[in-house]
Amino acid sequence: MFTRSVRKHSRLVSLQHARGRCGGPGSTHEDVDGVRTLLQLCVDRHYVSPGQANVERFQRGLGCCYGPLGVELRRNLLERWWDSVSRSSAQVFGISSVCSSSLHGGAHGHTTQKIVDVDRLKETLKQAGSKEQLIQEVHMLLQGSASLRTNFLQAALEQYVPSLELVNRKLPFGLAESGVCFQSSDGCAAEVTQASLVWFCSPKTSSHWMDHWARQRLKWWKKFASSPSDFDSSDVPAEELDGTASRGVKVVYSFPWGQEPLETLWNRGDAELLQMHKGVRNKLQSRDGRKSVPHVVSVTANMDRGVMAYLHNSLQQLKRENSKQKLQQRKVLKVHPVLAPVKVALDIGRGATVELRQICEGLQLELQEAEISVWPGYLDTVPTSMEQLNNKYDEMGVLFTVLISENTLESGLLQVRSRDTTIKETVHISEIRHFLSRYISAADSM
Amino acid sequence: MFTRSVRKHSRLVSLQHARGRCGGPGSTHEDVDGVRTLLQLCVDRHYVSPGQANVERFQRGLGCCYGPLGVELRRNLLERWWDSVSRSSAQVFGISSVCSSSLHGGAHGHTTQKIVDVDRLKETLKQAGSKEQLIQEVHMLLQGSASLRTNFLQAALEQYVPSLELVNRKLPFGLAESGVCFQSSDGCAAEVTQASLVWFCSPKTSSHWMDHWARQRLKWWKKFASSPSDFDSSDVPAEELDGTASRGVKVVYSFPWGQEPLETLWNRGDAELLQMHKGVRNKLQSRDGRKSVPHVVSVTANMDRGVMAYLHNSLQQLKRENSKQKLQQRKVLKVHPVLAPVKVALDIGRGATVELRQICEGLQLELQEAEISVWPGYLDTVPTSMEQLNNKYDEMGVLFTVLISENTLESGLLQVRSRDTTIKETVHISEIRHFLSRYISAADSM
Repeated sequence: MFTRSVRKHSRLVSLQHARGRCGGPGSTHEDVDGVRTLLQLCVDRHYVSPGQANVERFQRGLGCCYGPLGVELRRNLLERWWDSVSRSSAQVFGISSVCSSSLHGGAHGHTTQKIVDVDRLKETLKQAGSKEQLIQEVHMLLQGSASLRTNFLQAALEQYVPSLELVNRKLPFGLAESGVCFQSSDGCAAEVTQASLVWFCSPKTSSHWMDHWARQRLKWWKKFASSPSDFDSSDVPAEELDGTASRGVKVVYSFPWGQEPLETLWNRGDAELLQMHKGVRNKLQSRDGRKSVPHVVSVTANMDRGVMAYLHNSLQQLKRENSKQKLQQRKVLKVHPVLAPVKVALDIGRGATVELRQICEGLQLELQEAEISVWPGYLDTVPTSMEQLNNKYDEMGVLFTVLISENTLESGLLQVRSRDTTIKETVHISEIRHFLSRYISAADSM
Repeated sequence: MFTRSVRKHSRLVSLQHARGRCGGPGSTHEDVDGVRTLLQLCVDRHYVSPGQANVERFQRGLGCCYGPLGVELRRNLLERWWDSVSRSSAQVFGISSVCSSSLHGGAHGHTTQKIVDVDRLKETLKQAGSKEQLIQEVHMLLQGSASLRTNFLQAALEQYVPSLELVNRKLPFGLAESGVCFQSSDGCAAEVTQASLVWFCSPKTSSHWMDHWARQRLKWWKKFASSPSDFDSSDVPAEELDGTASRGVKVVYSFPWGQEPLETLWNRGDAELLQMHKGVRNKLQSRDGRKSVPHVVSVTANMDRGVMAYLHNSLQQLKRENSKQKLQQRKVLKVHPVLAPVKVALDIGRGATVELRQICEGLQLELQEAEISVWPGYLDTVPTSMEQLNNKYDEMGVLFTVLISENTLESGLLQVRSRDTTIKETVHISEIRHFLSRYISAADSM
């Protein structure tokens, strides 16, 4: 059968001295190969769209073009993130702001990316008289242009006042948002899909809440890992604290080229909230006891890097001997059942294809209604061996492969192969939905 | 009891001669009042964030800042849109592209919004010698700057080739994406949340598919309406056809100020696909029969305007006499059960609050696990009358209000009030989850 490869070991070795970029100084050859294999697999199996620049963005934890499987994985991850922060306590509300506003840049000045109307700028260049006039007019045009958000903090601080009404001025509560934010990377615009929780609590409870969220967030990231020890958290050194923050914590993932932050938490105090609302304390005060202005704990996750981390974490390369006693490598993407973009592939064996297809269509509908994502392998009419099919599905991270055959027509029995054990079971068609639901929810509650 | 107000009638009257902007020429006073009432309610009930500029963006069908209820409504709408296009046939894949790329502007030139790094532009202004040099350098900087996407078509055309592999070169299939797109509105950047399906099919079936999707999409919009006749579709006149398109259809909503498009469909032919892939036909050909380059049918919805349309469509103002025989107005947001951002509010009557709260917490958890969104009214400790509470929930569009009282502790019975009928029923606590699920799924399958 299968024997575990040395991947696990080689990664541990490499982490001891690899802190540069992938392929840079400090990375071993095995690392470079491992990362290359992963990225190639992500492209081949439609997690990430092809193209070197795109794949590089993906590796660096930036927004990139995703293929169908990547879209689903990121969507599942975002949904889980949202559930975990909003259900952990009663009062978390979702908000949604716009990407660009004249405010972001004005109030804080740390955004250097602005949206400029090219036609208007070109017009300005044409019309201006002297060089001095030209410079002045370009500056004016820039001043009137909207800045792109770098995070969701400003939007949440703004929304604090109407939201306080919503909870009848009672703390604590949180405002959550997810979507695209913009960063400046080497003078170019780079996008990141962020998920953000901004938590408002009384000053005396803020360090308790900071501890709570830091613990919760690390636990959450580890929950979906194949190898949880690659996820860790640490305090931000005092000299690197963000603005007025009194404490910072980063949840990091150990890539072969070093640790990178997945989620960052700051205990920010009340300074930014007061600044946003121009110091009008009575607008900000909560109802309980001391009429205090709340302190802010912010939690910001990079979901693009999260996708990369989980894909890296879940790729296992296993060696086995084939029938001719030759060593073969089997690659399996052991993405957590809850996150896996495809839960089940439906395929048909040889036989009366019309009837078998009809069974597949019915089953697909039934599973989709139970929110179980299905890969309609039965639609593919190009013949492939079962081994090739299994290899493909393992690389896609498909949890189960269901094979419907002539036998199903007679007895109602299906063959179900598990990605993780490679064991094949026989299940009755009326049981399959329940079988899959139970498996996924069991994995979720572990 | 309640009598239907004249709102319905006044809207029909106004539509006959109102085709300008809200409050502009052609709008009646009743219209202006009606729209004002709706927008104020949307702000008061946390669908839309306060602020005149923000509310105006919302009214115009542009992206804006949403409050918690608006976020949920848009999310429900987007999920349903996604389900309806991806489940209607087996092969629709989600993709995800980046907002900004150097390609969009280069290849098509209709985007006039670019992301410019302000620091670099300022540096350029400082360093340049003569005016001519300055102009040239600004032009170069613009050339290197990324454009913002106006739609998802380019991304889907790009993704066509790797996706063709995914389906083993078999047509038809579709690529779906949703997210923020950018428009130029009066020389300023405006955002819109779009949902897009790009459908690839054989040339001889394209007009069939165009019919299919146009019919499907109108049916979908009408499904969630309180007053379906406000949703309609019509062919785009020949002189307004987009680029190489041979046919266009718009699904529109009749606002008091005129019809506005919610979703637009184009039968685009193969010209853009060929252009994107530089005419390399064999890369694009499908496997079936004639090795044809597919034709493209594009479907693009504006989800921000969709939210505005459904809110407008679902607001009902009802007049009734109160106990002192004075006429009162009751405003109810009759958002479709499937779209309603809050399905159930949990409140407690007077009595042993600690025990009652515990029941609420347990029930909330149970309902959330069944994906039924709950409003934890029981957390609010400021006393309000039941009438005030019902008014508030009706304006929020909350489907059901569940009242847990002393009686519940003894008998397990709850009082459930329906938003739509205002009828109160008594339900056992063990039945409530099933009661709500059944109601929502019944409304869904109608």
